[in-house]
Amino acid sequence: MYTIGERINGMFKSVAAAIREQNPEPVHDLARRQLEGGANALDVNVGPAAADALAAMGWLVKTIREVTDAPLAIDTTKPDVMVRGLELAGPGSIINSAKGDQKQLDLYIPMAIEHQASLIALTIDENGIPRDEAGRGEIALRVVAAAMEKGLETNRLMIDPVILPTNVTQATPGHVLDAIRNVKVLSDPPPKTVLGLSNVSQGTKQRELINRTYLVMALAAGLDAAIVDALDSELMDAMIASELLLNHAVYCDDFLRAYRA
Amino acid sequence: MYTIGERINGMFKSVAAAIREQNPEPVHDLARRQLEGGANALDVNVGPAAADALAAMGWLVKTIREVTDAPLAIDTTKPDVMVRGLELAGPGSIINSAKGDQKQLDLYIPMAIEHQASLIALTIDENGIPRDEAGRGEIALRVVAAAMEKGLETNRLMIDPVILPTNVTQATPGHVLDAIRNVKVLSDPPPKTVLGLSNVSQGTKQRELINRTYLVMALAAGLDAAIVDALDSELMDAMIASELLLNHAVYCDDFLRAYRA
Repeated sequence: MYTIGERINGMFKSVAAAIREQNPEPVHDLARRQLEGGANALDVNVGPAAADALAAMGWLVKTIREVTDAPLAIDTTKPDVMVRGLELAGPGSIINSAKGDQKQLDLYIPMAIEHQASLIALTIDENGIPRDEAGRGEIALRVVAAAMEKGLETNRLMIDPVILPTNVTQATPGHVLDAIRNVKVLSDPPPKTVLGLSNVSQGTKQRELINRTYLVMALAAGLDAAIVDALDSELMDAMIASELLLNHAVYCDDFLRAYRA
Repeated sequence: MYTIGERINGMFKSVAAAIREQNPEPVHDLARRQLEGGANALDVNVGPAAADALAAMGWLVKTIREVTDAPLAIDTTKPDVMVRGLELAGPGSIINSAKGDQKQLDLYIPMAIEHQASLIALTIDENGIPRDEAGRGEIALRVVAAAMEKGLETNRLMIDPVILPTNVTQATPGHVLDAIRNVKVLSDPPPKTVLGLSNVSQGTKQRELINRTYLVMALAAGLDAAIVDALDSELMDAMIASELLLNHAVYCDDFLRAYRA
């Protein structure tokens, strides 16, 4: 699985404080620890409280680049902040995210091409989040068609079928598993699939248990990538064991350490 | 998931000693603790060392019946020991197990009907364990046809597609997931599916992690039942969280305790 670490996010107090005080240490530390934990890429989100989101994104990306060249997922709803992040992070970044309506696709697909980035597209449109897997599939198809039309390779497209908290809507985890399977037949090469995993457990007790259980199910359904807490070692162990059982990684007795190394 | 607890097995030293010394306490204790842990039924296996398997099975079943009326899965390769176990355990027991060759089906399907038992049938025949999901499906189809012909309701048939240790054959976990999905379309009502789970991790390090990760995948593929260590609380937590995410159990904040109660 392609693991995108979610912890550099101004929603967390330590990151918000680091941004406010221009203190690079907590950011360096989170970057290093997530990569050591098994992350392949790092999500970067200035959070809701940043007074100047453009400056905050610039500072965060430059600060992360002091310690790693790992791909960054620039996580913002503001197009100018997205462009700033992509410019400073360099080619191979990830746009996180566009919605699946025509207006956003017209904006973000050319942006992905221009900046040699991948694009996470949510199965959300003018009508909101679809009720079931069929609605998710319809939006995914529209996104794939738009990518083909505009010239973005479909394997640089990452469809996020939008998981919701299981205590709010218990049918959604099943719908999203179906959507992950269905998206794989939309094009050749198929688009990638990705989930913002932690949302499945939002507001529940037993958040870590629910997160890792659902991640295993989604991987077995064919999930390619996920935005996760890469510092949650039990989650990462479950992911690595899944890779083994799905024959994506070769067994050795020390497989947990081998994967992270 | 229908959980069959695997711990009353003469392969374990404490059980072998209890049988030898006719000491009911360890057996009572294992029966109670597995049921409290979430088991719906208890596997009963006298183990390889029992001098008189017939007498040992009789003593074990009677001893278990002193503390619970839960269904028992009589686990032996000896037909006379099986009959003794079924007679003493009563209707609603489980025959564990028949192979999928004609000779064993001719023996065990009538036995299941006579004793009002369910029948676990392994996808193994004269040629051994099939290489892939197609071979497993062929044997499963033969088993379903034999059950229909002889008059055993297909929902009292439990097909076990035979998981092997992941360190021996890494493609098998994937084949078995496919087999679980495929078995569901063989008849209406479909046969149940069951796995002897612990075999997936035999000889590996990280046995518990591999067991619980694979159980979650198998449940998402539609597995109905499993023979597991019901005393492994992390395994049972993963199973219960899966039931929630697959919308088989209703969410409440205290769902782990609610399921076990």
